[in-house]
Amino acid sequence: MIQITTFKWVPPFVQGYVKDLSVRWALEEIGLPYELKLITREDQSSSAYRQHQPFGQVPVYQEGELSLFESGGILLHIGEKSEVLLPTETKARSRARSWVIAALNSVEPFTQNYNQTAAASEKETWAQERRPTVESALKNRLGSLNTWLMGKEYLEGRFSIGDIMMVQILRNVADASFFSEFPNLVRYLTLCESRPAFQKALAAQMKTFADNAPAS
Amino acid sequence: MIQITTFKWVPPFVQGYVKDLSVRWALEEIGLPYELKLITREDQSSSAYRQHQPFGQVPVYQEGELSLFESGGILLHIGEKSEVLLPTETKARSRARSWVIAALNSVEPFTQNYNQTAAASEKETWAQERRPTVESALKNRLGSLNTWLMGKEYLEGRFSIGDIMMVQILRNVADASFFSEFPNLVRYLTLCESRPAFQKALAAQMKTFADNAPAS
Repeated sequence: MIQITTFKWVPPFVQGYVKDLSVRWALEEIGLPYELKLITREDQSSSAYRQHQPFGQVPVYQEGELSLFESGGILLHIGEKSEVLLPTETKARSRARSWVIAALNSVEPFTQNYNQTAAASEKETWAQERRPTVESALKNRLGSLNTWLMGKEYLEGRFSIGDIMMVQILRNVADASFFSEFPNLVRYLTLCESRPAFQKALAAQMKTFADNAPAS
Repeated sequence: MIQITTFKWVPPFVQGYVKDLSVRWALEEIGLPYELKLITREDQSSSAYRQHQPFGQVPVYQEGELSLFESGGILLHIGEKSEVLLPTETKARSRARSWVIAALNSVEPFTQNYNQTAAASEKETWAQERRPTVESALKNRLGSLNTWLMGKEYLEGRFSIGDIMMVQILRNVADASFFSEFPNLVRYLTLCESRPAFQKALAAQMKTFADNAPAS
């Protein structure tokens, strides 16, 4: 059976946002079962784990003799299992894959930078000074995406792994008030998050962390 | 003929690092000719260009009716043209693609963050305060990659689009002295950059900018 390696537990503010979510979601879309292998923060730095994930991150995906890392790379692989996730026609397939990359390289660096700066800005002067610039850069990217989505349900009209990756990244914007400027993004997120497979994947991730909560 | 859209000209410190380099390199590896479409900074924000590149970046790749954006997405597409760039066997193909993603999502955010912070640190106090943290984070990633490359010529033993993307990203580390700590990375970069296709691609990018240098 397919095995996903993820964290045994994370603090509440990260729950629902760990990157195994996108992989669980893709598998739910096509009804493929999976089992979990749960690791601790300590396991991340072991040389045995680094053989599967060179940077010590999660998730890792194992299917028979295939061991894969990077949620985007895993989605590219799972996508080939079903037309539901990735068109087989060359042009449409290539464009869906480009959206996976766009989410990870043209949007996430801006969400991460903003989240880190905003979180630090309560206490650190560098973050207070830097915050307007990174906020503006993020809004610029969100605005471009909002324009792209004008009149479209999904990024390329039909649902694909590109949407799964983009939604995983957009959900991480810690300040939801940002989206009030971008109605197409709000509509898009609502549509994608209403998919039953997304809801199942989210509930499954939350259950993992609830089941493994440290004794208080 | 395949058409690559890139900048007509960029300042000298960016020349040799614009992301069309990886696309040119992949095409040189398999001997596919291409022509250029050159744009200015002003063109980037036009709604016509945004139809091809939602964030206004370069490169854009056009091949018949296919228009693709994101250098990583373009490499995934070109890779399927030849076993030289991407193995056809499922497991090896999936792992090579994961390295394309790793370069763009697990390494580049750290190189970019470091470069921006280091460049700003001459003048801005936020950057002076922040620099040690982002430098340490980048070295952590480079160290993980250095460990992974122990005893390997390429990321997965044999050359692939994963190496093209990783080398494009690693070359962008503005402070070359970083690499003195990471001998496997130095060896890896030297090996990849000695490939004739890389040298041709680099020379071609430099020639474009030389040919279009503004009158001084």
